Amino acid sequence: MKLYDNNQAPNPRRVRMVLAEKGINDIEMMQIDLSAGGNLTPEFCVKNPFAKVPVLELDNGFCLAETGAICRYLDELYEGTCLYGKTLEERARIDMWDHRMALGLVISVAMGFQHLSGFFKDRMTPIEAWGKESVSNALKVLPILEKQLADNTWVAGSEFSIADITAICAIDFARVIKIRIGDEYPSIQRWYAAMQERPSYKA
Amino acid sequence: MKLYDNNQAPNPRRVRMVLAEKGINDIEMMQIDLSAGGNLTPEFCVKNPFAKVPVLELDNGFCLAETGAICRYLDELYEGTCLYGKTLEERARIDMWDHRMALGLVISVAMGFQHLSGFFKDRMTPIEAWGKESVSNALKVLPILEKQLADNTWVAGSEFSIADITAICAIDFARVIKIRIGDEYPSIQRWYAAMQERPSYKA
Repeated sequence: MKLYDNNQAPNPRRVRMVLAEKGINDIEMMQIDLSAGGNLTPEFCVKNPFAKVPVLELDNGFCLAETGAICRYLDELYEGTCLYGKTLEERARIDMWDHRMALGLVISVAMGFQHLSGFFKDRMTPIEAWGKESVSNALKVLPILEKQLADNTWVAGSEFSIADITAICAIDFARVIKIRIGDEYPSIQRWYAAMQERPSYKA
Repeated sequence: MKLYDNNQAPNPRRVRMVLAEKGINDIEMMQIDLSAGGNLTPEFCVKNPFAKVPVLELDNGFCLAETGAICRYLDELYEGTCLYGKTLEERARIDMWDHRMALGLVISVAMGFQHLSGFFKDRMTPIEAWGKESVSNALKVLPILEKQLADNTWVAGSEFSIADITAICAIDFARVIKIRIGDEYPSIQRWYAAMQERPSYKA
């Protein structure tokens, strides 16, 4: 299999962290240069008409896009740490927190970056007011995450899960919009330190 | 179990369509009035700190939020039509298209509505430029969906799936931002007519 990857964007890192957590090392990594428009070429758009990384190309040629779908597929395909939970209710709880981190944090942080930095202004119209609103929306998630991590070891509960991976990729990328986890969030800081201890953090 | 529902918003309809497709009729339906702020009360925010519907309250009191997590949980919990696929690769393909419809269509349509209608202006600042951009982003998905439905009976392939439910809820709600499926999209029209034939369409 081949993974179409980018080493600066937050979503491909979610997949690389899954690979690291599960000890998967038989996937060929292909770097796509987003600033040079490597995701906009006709060849790439055949693989993913939505022109986004990551994309996982299976050995039969099928191209699986969408970070959440790729991570879940890899979790099911490979043995090792289970990132999506075991019982039905545990799976649902992890799924809920993964959605909350993906929809509430990753998207808001990415919108903030795209609309404030002008990084993709060759291919989209940045709207500064929406960029600022997106930063504000991302910040509103932090008190909720703080409460959750005051009551639980990991984002979705007592087990490390895909929700931790989604959250850390959003929070690390949020540095580009000047969001830092300050001392008002001691539980997020405790969790962040635990995440940095994991080998997958460097993925 | 209880479902905190709203009969005008697109996301709760995704859950109601799952209930209808699977023939589930033992869930108590609780209507939350969004325009009156029924989702913003302290009581509701204990159930979902993100203050959104739908929420599925299990019999043990656990509150499951996030539409995608609720639909998947119900699909696994109840017998009947399988909406998330059977083989590993089929599940991944359905998951990909469900993500594409949720992230590419539902969110863009909802943003277009929220930022152009002023419906929630008591609790957010509508940004007209972002509303227009969101409508434009939703429209960009239609040619991709047209090609997919020219090659396949259903959104994710040859099987009816959750991706069809997510897509139809987005497309029907898109009427509020004046998006219609015109004659330039014959395959989407063919699929739309097939969706209307299903009893779950009225959910």
